Amino acid sequence: VAPATRLFQTVLKKMNEFEQIEQIRRMAESKRGIRLDETIVGIGDDAAVLRWKSPHLVVTTDCQVEGVHFSFKTSSAEEIGYRLLAVNLSDLAAMGATPKAVLVSLCLGPTVDAPFVKKFYSGMLALARKASVQIVGGNISRSKHTSVFDLTAIGGMHAQPLLRSGARAGDLVAITGTLGDSAAGFFALKKLGPRARQRFGPQVVRHLRPVPRSEFGPRLVGLASSCIDLSDGLSSELHHLAAASGLGFWIDQKSLPVSQGLRRLAKEFNQDVSQWVLHGGEDYQLLFTVSPDHWKQVEKVARLTQTPISVIGFTDKQNANRGRGRTRRTRTAPSVKLLRVDGKTQALEAEGWVHF
Amino acid sequence: VAPATRLFQTVLKKMNEFEQIEQIRRMAESKRGIRLDETIVGIGDDAAVLRWKSPHLVVTTDCQVEGVHFSFKTSSAEEIGYRLLAVNLSDLAAMGATPKAVLVSLCLGPTVDAPFVKKFYSGMLALARKASVQIVGGNISRSKHTSVFDLTAIGGMHAQPLLRSGARAGDLVAITGTLGDSAAGFFALKKLGPRARQRFGPQVVRHLRPVPRSEFGPRLVGLASSCIDLSDGLSSELHHLAAASGLGFWIDQKSLPVSQGLRRLAKEFNQDVSQWVLHGGEDYQLLFTVSPDHWKQVEKVARLTQTPISVIGFTDKQNANRGRGRTRRTRTAPSVKLLRVDGKTQALEAEGWVHF
Repeated sequence: VAPATRLFQTVLKKMNEFEQIEQIRRMAESKRGIRLDETIVGIGDDAAVLRWKSPHLVVTTDCQVEGVHFSFKTSSAEEIGYRLLAVNLSDLAAMGATPKAVLVSLCLGPTVDAPFVKKFYSGMLALARKASVQIVGGNISRSKHTSVFDLTAIGGMHAQPLLRSGARAGDLVAITGTLGDSAAGFFALKKLGPRARQRFGPQVVRHLRPVPRSEFGPRLVGLASSCIDLSDGLSSELHHLAAASGLGFWIDQKSLPVSQGLRRLAKEFNQDVSQWVLHGGEDYQLLFTVSPDHWKQVEKVARLTQTPISVIGFTDKQNANRGRGRTRRTRTAPSVKLLRVDGKTQALEAEGWVHF
Repeated sequence: VAPATRLFQTVLKKMNEFEQIEQIRRMAESKRGIRLDETIVGIGDDAAVLRWKSPHLVVTTDCQVEGVHFSFKTSSAEEIGYRLLAVNLSDLAAMGATPKAVLVSLCLGPTVDAPFVKKFYSGMLALARKASVQIVGGNISRSKHTSVFDLTAIGGMHAQPLLRSGARAGDLVAITGTLGDSAAGFFALKKLGPRARQRFGPQVVRHLRPVPRSEFGPRLVGLASSCIDLSDGLSSELHHLAAASGLGFWIDQKSLPVSQGLRRLAKEFNQDVSQWVLHGGEDYQLLFTVSPDHWKQVEKVARLTQTPISVIGFTDKQNANRGRGRTRRTRTAPSVKLLRVDGKTQALEAEGWVHF
């Protein structure tokens, strides 16, 4: 089902909060900053209908699961809604697509009430308006235990997408923003609870309200040779690019961008900075490769969109040839090398990110 | 994230079943009966990319939640996967859209293992191939308690969609198939357990493996004046159409199509046939209105697609005028009247469908 019906009925039946849900519908359909002209049928029928002008449709889905991606203890309803949209917009940005519309599927556990849903939508809509994305439909259902929030994002693009494959030997490896802040913020939340918000605000915000690179990503099209967003941590994502391109990646540890707040947090809790920087997940920065010939143009685009970028390494044919043939299947193929701060070289293994 | 990455990584980490998931990926990408030409990027990058030829994009999302829409006790993995796709295709059919691609988001509770996921996909793919739908992406995540399976379906259409609004006074009200079988099958499953499959096969199958009207729906475009699929039961859906069109609906109880199996089941368990027929949910038949001028053409399309159809009533301006103004807000607006078998007339109230 789509939108309104199931949304209205389920919530109505379970919560008797018709007026409130009507309000959400009105919130979602507000015209402020949203291009309604492409939506022929929005919330309120069996499906939404969009007039499609772009030749390419770019679609992705990602969820936020209670106790896995978030905890009701550390995140507000607004933050959970915001984050659900942000992580999906980040995937579109990594393809170079411009976000257009989303569908939201909520499975509400027993602790979730109608005011929560309203706040959740309000957090999501704040970002949707900023990104000119329209919520065109969705679904609300009950869940006996766990709350699961699912979103499907639809983007458009006229050119060829930015893939994980496509890097060429001798390309620069670059990244937006700083690394590891989200993981550090998550750590601070677990250690300090709500007090972490005051003490390490920027890191906590980066964890709870990551900023998708929705303006920068589409502008990399035609410039970057490959691109991916950082959901599972730098080391994992580097291995994805290396495997997809069949090239070796050399990373210069000294060049990895680290925030002052993260260093302060690591010092205070006697934690290893490089663990967060190399393997911390959920930063939602873009990791991309670009020919040195295009670098000046990339810098221009970065200035235009006020996106901090750093070169962190380069790609190399040599390195890849060794692991070739099995690179796609072997998770720890020795194709990513780290030039350490101490001057030594080591293989950079892919370490997965475990949320909770 | 999309597809493969998160899918591979999560399942890999938690299950060590890489080979099995590779197999699913191969299953999903098999070319049998699937138009790969429109998919530029399928499973394996941050998002899927489709070349879009239709001017209209029709999108919907619906989920299957453990303990709400299904139980692992009564449904097999294949059936849960099949049903997740079927309920979404039914929404597209109700819009008159042709299904093209789907994204699947799985949140796996603790009881779900890798063989389950494979069987789940196999059930879903059986229907996907039949409907020429491609699984272009998705996501797999853990869930601490409840399993939640979410799907977003993308369809295309060149003409104007079939809406819930649009019925005109004097239209015929019609329906595909028979009514109440799914609710009766669900009842039998609860009463008899697995034995219900032998004793009341057609009803159980209608509950566990509903057949979306994917061929008939798109052919109603230009003929039907409004359309909706039956997920919440006839009475509820009639009220949706009545409210959206601002018309009164008269339904002739004698003309409601009822299967022999349902009558037998009702008799054996001393149940009220009309309760299932009028209010039983999850039949996923199409309920539509059509001008008498177009009826012969609708019959032709029904023969062509081997779809049983029945006229069950008509629409009336008179009836609606009374409740007007509040019809959109009042759930039990007296705009749907039932001409009972005993010759008397009564208001047909919307009764919601409660799954488990």
